[in-house]
Amino acid sequence: MKKVIGIIGGMGPLATADLFRKITLHAAVASDQEHPRVVIDSNTDIPDRTEALLHGGKSPVPEMVNSARRLERAGAEVLVMPCNTAHCFFDEVASSVRIPMLHMITLTCDALRARGVKRAGLLATDGTVRTGIYQNAFDDNDIALLTPPPAAQAAVMDIIYGGIKAGKLDYDASAFRAACEGLLAAGAETLVLGCTELPPVFELYHLDYSAVDPTLELALGALRFAGCPIK
Amino acid sequence: MKKVIGIIGGMGPLATADLFRKITLHAAVASDQEHPRVVIDSNTDIPDRTEALLHGGKSPVPEMVNSARRLERAGAEVLVMPCNTAHCFFDEVASSVRIPMLHMITLTCDALRARGVKRAGLLATDGTVRTGIYQNAFDDNDIALLTPPPAAQAAVMDIIYGGIKAGKLDYDASAFRAACEGLLAAGAETLVLGCTELPPVFELYHLDYSAVDPTLELALGALRFAGCPIK
Repeated sequence: MKKVIGIIGGMGPLATADLFRKITLHAAVASDQEHPRVVIDSNTDIPDRTEALLHGGKSPVPEMVNSARRLERAGAEVLVMPCNTAHCFFDEVASSVRIPMLHMITLTCDALRARGVKRAGLLATDGTVRTGIYQNAFDDNDIALLTPPPAAQAAVMDIIYGGIKAGKLDYDASAFRAACEGLLAAGAETLVLGCTELPPVFELYHLDYSAVDPTLELALGALRFAGCPIK
Repeated sequence: MKKVIGIIGGMGPLATADLFRKITLHAAVASDQEHPRVVIDSNTDIPDRTEALLHGGKSPVPEMVNSARRLERAGAEVLVMPCNTAHCFFDEVASSVRIPMLHMITLTCDALRARGVKRAGLLATDGTVRTGIYQNAFDDNDIALLTPPPAAQAAVMDIIYGGIKAGKLDYDASAFRAACEGLLAAGAETLVLGCTELPPVFELYHLDYSAVDPTLELALGALRFAGCPIK
């Protein structure tokens, strides 16, 4: 019997759709009925995570907990949260429910270790970068983490907030491209798409740098937990 | 205040992900928080609709009703159902909840009328074709409906069940292409992608015939109902 996957979503909605699509495309099944049941709360009432972490904005925790509990009531047996920055609040959300919750950043570290990566470049929001959530996990695993210099980091923030979250399909990605190339030139073997809006960014703006996709790692982790064969 | 959209999903999961993505990409908003909240039950316990309609399979209605009620309890203020064949059971599901439900096939007819289409070709499952659910709606709107001859219809069924629902990314789409071209050669001005698995089919197998996408019409209808600006 496959387990029911619950997605705390809306951080942002496109990242949520991306995770759900990856869960679906990577299930090695032959009919609708063999896919795991997935319940999603794309809760756009959750306040911005970076704003809360760095600028004294409203805490996202109460609404994240509301979603976690709603999903548990709807039958979810495991929770996932496709937002890297939101993982700064992981413990508070995970402790609000009785069902387990998978940790996207831990899963990403596992994937990098499995590939033998020793030095990775982080593309993420200011909130994720400054709280050191990737840095701490990577330190524990002896993986060196490079982050972009300030101007390049600003380009990363801008493609996330001014490009994808603002829904601009014609956004000029050249400054972001330069940020990616800067990390690779500095010795990063691969890029960590450390914001769940970035896999859709790579797809929409046709970027093809070597990258590890935490959303994909979370999708595979959820399928494994649900007992669903993977392809 | 934007209304909460509920999606009765899992028929199939990829069609559900496709609808959610279209709702997200067509919202003319500038931040996560401006998107409508969307709750989704990708309920893969719902039995196959065509099987129930044509071969005496188990009724999908009880599980569809379970999903509808769960979504209503989770706060949904309008329901949508991204599965054409499932619309044969529309009245039974809609009458099980107090919130309104949007009808994908009616919305598709509205879109064809708005474009001045007089003759359209239907690509759909045997269940959708034989129950006449499109035929009836089109008759009411004076739009002629062409359906594929038996061998071509078999190719349509096969790409849906043997291709997309079975997750075969390397499926040979040539017989399906011939079915599309047959309808256009017979005078169809455009093709109705009358199975929600077909927009992902067109995308994955790179088909670009003139087509109306009921999933997109449903996404736009849901955004309008939710009070969200559209792009």
